[in-house]
Amino acid sequence: MKRYELRGMNGVESLQVADAPMPTPGPGEALVRVHAVSLNYRDLLVVSGMYPGSPPLPLVPTSDGAGEVAAVGPGVDRVKVGDRVAGTFFESWVSGRLTERDMATARGGATQGMLAEYVVSHADALVRVPDHLSFGDAATLPCAAVTAWHALFEVAPLRPGETVLVLGTGGVSIFALQLAAMAGAQAIVTSSSDEKLERARGLGAATTINYKKTPDWEIAVREATGGAGVDRVIEVGGPGTFQKSLASLRVGGRLSLIGILTGFAGGVEVVPILLGSLHVDGIYVGSREMFESMNRAIARTKLSPVIDRAFAFADAPAAYEYLRSGAHFGKVVIRID
Amino acid sequence: MKRYELRGMNGVESLQVADAPMPTPGPGEALVRVHAVSLNYRDLLVVSGMYPGSPPLPLVPTSDGAGEVAAVGPGVDRVKVGDRVAGTFFESWVSGRLTERDMATARGGATQGMLAEYVVSHADALVRVPDHLSFGDAATLPCAAVTAWHALFEVAPLRPGETVLVLGTGGVSIFALQLAAMAGAQAIVTSSSDEKLERARGLGAATTINYKKTPDWEIAVREATGGAGVDRVIEVGGPGTFQKSLASLRVGGRLSLIGILTGFAGGVEVVPILLGSLHVDGIYVGSREMFESMNRAIARTKLSPVIDRAFAFADAPAAYEYLRSGAHFGKVVIRID
Amino acid sequence: MKRYELRGMNGVESLQVADAPMPTPGPGEALVRVHAVSLNYRDLLVVSGMYPGSPPLPLVPTSDGAGEVAAVGPGVDRVKVGDRVAGTFFESWVSGRLTERDMATARGGATQGMLAEYVVSHADALVRVPDHLSFGDAATLPCAAVTAWHALFEVAPLRPGETVLVLGTGGVSIFALQLAAMAGAQAIVTSSSDEKLERARGLGAATTINYKKTPDWEIAVREATGGAGVDRVIEVGGPGTFQKSLASLRVGGRLSLIGILTGFAGGVEVVPILLGSLHVDGIYVGSREMFESMNRAIARTKLSPVIDRAFAFADAPAAYEYLRSGAHFGKVVIRID
Amino acid sequence: MKRYELRGMNGVESLQVADAPMPTPGPGEALVRVHAVSLNYRDLLVVSGMYPGSPPLPLVPTSDGAGEVAAVGPGVDRVKVGDRVAGTFFESWVSGRLTERDMATARGGATQGMLAEYVVSHADALVRVPDHLSFGDAATLPCAAVTAWHALFEVAPLRPGETVLVLGTGGVSIFALQLAAMAGAQAIVTSSSDEKLERARGLGAATTINYKKTPDWEIAVREATGGAGVDRVIEVGGPGTFQKSLASLRVGGRLSLIGILTGFAGGVEVVPILLGSLHVDGIYVGSREMFESMNRAIARTKLSPVIDRAFAFADAPAAYEYLRSGAHFGKVVIRID
Repeated sequence: MKRYELRGMNGVESLQVADAPMPTPGPGEALVRVHAVSLNYRDLLVVSGMYPGSPPLPLVPTSDGAGEVAAVGPGVDRVKVGDRVAGTFFESWVSGRLTERDMATARGGATQGMLAEYVVSHADALVRVPDHLSFGDAATLPCAAVTAWHALFEVAPLRPGETVLVLGTGGVSIFALQLAAMAGAQAIVTSSSDEKLERARGLGAATTINYKKTPDWEIAVREATGGAGVDRVIEVGGPGTFQKSLASLRVGGRLSLIGILTGFAGGVEVVPILLGSLHVDGIYVGSREMFESMNRAIARTKLSPVIDRAFAFADAPAAYEYLRSGAHFGKVVIRID
Repeated sequence: MKRYELRGMNGVESLQVADAPMPTPGPGEALVRVHAVSLNYRDLLVVSGMYPGSPPLPLVPTSDGAGEVAAVGPGVDRVKVGDRVAGTFFESWVSGRLTERDMATARGGATQGMLAEYVVSHADALVRVPDHLSFGDAATLPCAAVTAWHALFEVAPLRPGETVLVLGTGGVSIFALQLAAMAGAQAIVTSSSDEKLERARGLGAATTINYKKTPDWEIAVREATGGAGVDRVIEVGGPGTFQKSLASLRVGGRLSLIGILTGFAGGVEVVPILLGSLHVDGIYVGSREMFESMNRAIARTKLSPVIDRAFAFADAPAAYEYLRSGAHFGKVVIRID
Repeated sequence: MKRYELRGMNGVESLQVADAPMPTPGPGEALVRVHAVSLNYRDLLVVSGMYPGSPPLPLVPTSDGAGEVAAVGPGVDRVKVGDRVAGTFFESWVSGRLTERDMATARGGATQGMLAEYVVSHADALVRVPDHLSFGDAATLPCAAVTAWHALFEVAPLRPGETVLVLGTGGVSIFALQLAAMAGAQAIVTSSSDEKLERARGLGAATTINYKKTPDWEIAVREATGGAGVDRVIEVGGPGTFQKSLASLRVGGRLSLIGILTGFAGGVEVVPILLGSLHVDGIYVGSREMFESMNRAIARTKLSPVIDRAFAFADAPAAYEYLRSGAHFGKVVIRID
Repeated sequence: MKRYELRGMNGVESLQVADAPMPTPGPGEALVRVHAVSLNYRDLLVVSGMYPGSPPLPLVPTSDGAGEVAAVGPGVDRVKVGDRVAGTFFESWVSGRLTERDMATARGGATQGMLAEYVVSHADALVRVPDHLSFGDAATLPCAAVTAWHALFEVAPLRPGETVLVLGTGGVSIFALQLAAMAGAQAIVTSSSDEKLERARGLGAATTINYKKTPDWEIAVREATGGAGVDRVIEVGGPGTFQKSLASLRVGGRLSLIGILTGFAGGVEVVPILLGSLHVDGIYVGSREMFESMNRAIARTKLSPVIDRAFAFADAPAAYEYLRSGAHFGKVVIRID
């Protein structure tokens, strides 16, 4: 079988296709025939050596994959051959609190990932995917969708009528937009592209702001909420946008810190957190229990993930480059036929 | 000005129109020109002397009314003349915990109600109503809609994909159905009328059950949820339905005890609460803060309350009788022109 | 090795000592040399065939045991030989929501229990016990203490200054008293024995009530709280005490339904739940995560479990009879030397 | 009657004693004979013109005062003449969410404060104080103690066995230490003074760290928790300590941002919030409902506030200077005899 391996971390060129022996599931494990993976910004950090920790080399990259159970090891009754499944981001985080131990099981970073024809996974780290989703659709869920779900419905559940500021139109942001709309909330979306904003409106965004044309977008956000500020921000920019995100919140509002697209560096002023009685929550993907709650919602409301573009397995490096370009709207997928 | 007064509590016939002097708002108070009231099952208990406590006689009945601010007393800046408002059910419950003191301010029961051309209310006990609602629409909100909102979004917020069992098609139940649908949840509705069930499907019910034809409806509910049971029950029947409602819940599910349409009497077995790790919450309408959160959701999603029938002021007794007949679907309203 | 086995369910006389082969831990499992078990009221139901479900026969009884890890199977790194551990009540409930699947792993009922010199357990179903506790002390924790902890700190955490009504002086109740005192809350304890009430005061009870001498103890509870009612009730009686427990609560108070010492039968009036905006939560022991949170609290505050009497392994039937007599205060333990 | 007035904001020298007419309580108001006030760091900001917003001049300073009700206006039944009371920090925040409207009622900053022989207050903005407290004791509560209570028990209630890092030994910090101990939690306290640390141990601190001698105190904190990090930080330093406070937390831990003793300026890195799944909550004193919950806990556990030094009314400026010196341990009080 074939898989991608990172033998160094010098960028996308470090991605190499390699032959590997077919793995065998041990006790409690399942063998999954992977049909699709999706990419996350974090996967760009991994190939560049910028991801925290020291990934084991050679590393099979990417956290997100979906496929079919091909075999199960002894003692597995949670899944069976033929089940359509996706893997969880953290192989050991089933429910309850995230622990340091769980953090050492992040696929495609701390442990082996999904960009392979076959992978072995703990059966406890697989979830069944909604029937109406293709494998490509399902592969978009483990990191981006679960992160958005966790931020919106697990820390303090979003309620109808609340307002959510969504920064940009990447994977997490588009899921946040779709999930907010599903829950009767109002999304405000920012982007530098009017075309992307138009697409966001098509997905249910109540208000859109071109942050290139409106650099003081936090003021526009407040205006769009009658001066009050939003209830929530899904903050994916990190240091470069954090300050304006805080300024967009109502008194007592909540910021979910999810990503650092603007980089690691840069200090922010925290006094506004105090003066506005704000809440800031670091969101690091989510547990299997969250994933399953989300899947139920996706299945029942027939939510359709937004895939910008799907690449062939052989073109995985091009998929990485495309993600890096920032041209995407929603998710970038790699098919493994 | 005219108003209805109860001078005894011998049933609907105790309702009498009376002339009364125009009231004057004191410090912190507002005078409201009431344009519509709505009836609740509780109003039938009041006129029959079955409502707990000893209402002051003569009593202006009904808790729910909407109208226009006609004048304000000294020190009022929360509302102004011309504002379109509804009164809160408990005149003193603004936010936080319900107290015994608040319970002594329940309009149309513990204190004077809204079935009058003009009423004086604490300005703190008025909320602005969504622009798209008529006064008749707005008059349906204070008791039934706030109760449903409280049950679904304040105790433990309902999340997308969850299932809610709604008993019957009265005022609270139809709001619960509409609010569940608004939030991306799945409602299961019971009724003895196939026609009402069809209307419920039109409002978004995912599953409907005729409890006359299916007396073991709790079994049908479990089947409709793949055997798991529902996440929530909006229990308006009381002793007569409670046991089956418990049996409809998933492990860890939550029952909101809201009404007692089947009467006060009758014992229930509580052991299923223990064995199923169930949660039962008594829900007694809600606070002004809840009302305002709900109004925001109603305004932004343009929810339209379901009014079965609107009666003229002179026909208020007929409105009570119609509610008692149980023929209604949604709310019964009285216009005060 | 020796163990007790139930081959029928005709009461305590069904308990038989048997020889059994030494079990071997499989992948993910550990072998535990059990040094002590404790009894719960539920163990009396099991031997009498009154416990819900159909226990597998022969059944090793009792859920609660503590001992030393004697060997571990392949792939176990959670515990190691020599660790002092206790088993969790539900072998599969690690964290998050209780499921039906977890309920099928209740030790000493749905699955094999702990009244044996050696048992094999999933390593994930063991917790390390606080250093200052003996094995007898530690054996009191898995059911009774975790139940009390769950009721007081997991559903809605008890805060300093709140009042907790504790019914009786059995295992769960005494832990509830000790944990409430640990948390700065005020416990009110009932018993039919003045001597037991005196001991309860010694453990920190702020108020005690002899329910034999004061049959309307719910009135005494209200008086002790200045008329307001208590914030919480730890309800272990079930149908026979539930009504009075509801009547003891403040508006918005919370009842944890934990046990049914008064039997399965008997209807209760639920209308007070509605009128008092009360909350009732079925509490079915708890997860491993809860157990570990509790152990940390016990370790840091040096809580000492109250053991009424410890029996030798050979006298296990007498321990059951003693528990049935109701003479105990706190826990009944069986040592396995 | 006499009161202090700020006519400018040029520091402590702006404090001037002035004669003022005896105020009369209007509808819903009460006249309080103030017997003691306490100072907070915020009062230093106010006199220096560094407090956000534009206080009305002349301004009676200080938020915290306790005394006796001397008269009540029309319609007041919440308090009566002779009641021993303290004022709430925000005159309008009774319960529920903090609003911008409430923020405009902060005593001694946005509105008139308590450093006067008599003040008029909304009756709704007064709370009865525990019997065992002197007026001086009671005057320490409105800002510092309520803030600590809010951080520890209202956002996510602290549970027994949890660990709380308390920075320094000022008013909020010492209350946080006492409240944590009351609740069965473990406090870790930092200070630059070994003598103060010894006093902290006397109040129940489990671990103390001299941050002068141990500049990398966040490492010492982690060591004191077996490497895990603390569950909570009560962060009063602001930009200058925030980073180390984040580094002191366990995965999923919670930082309460309460003060900015190190100043307004200075950027912090927020990426650790993401990587550690941390929670940061801005805490701005609290509501009356929180104050009353805390008072109940203080009354029942007989907590005794720590007053470092009490000054005479005439020496109020010296009290400000003493607070500014940082020599205090606990609260600084001004008596008004």
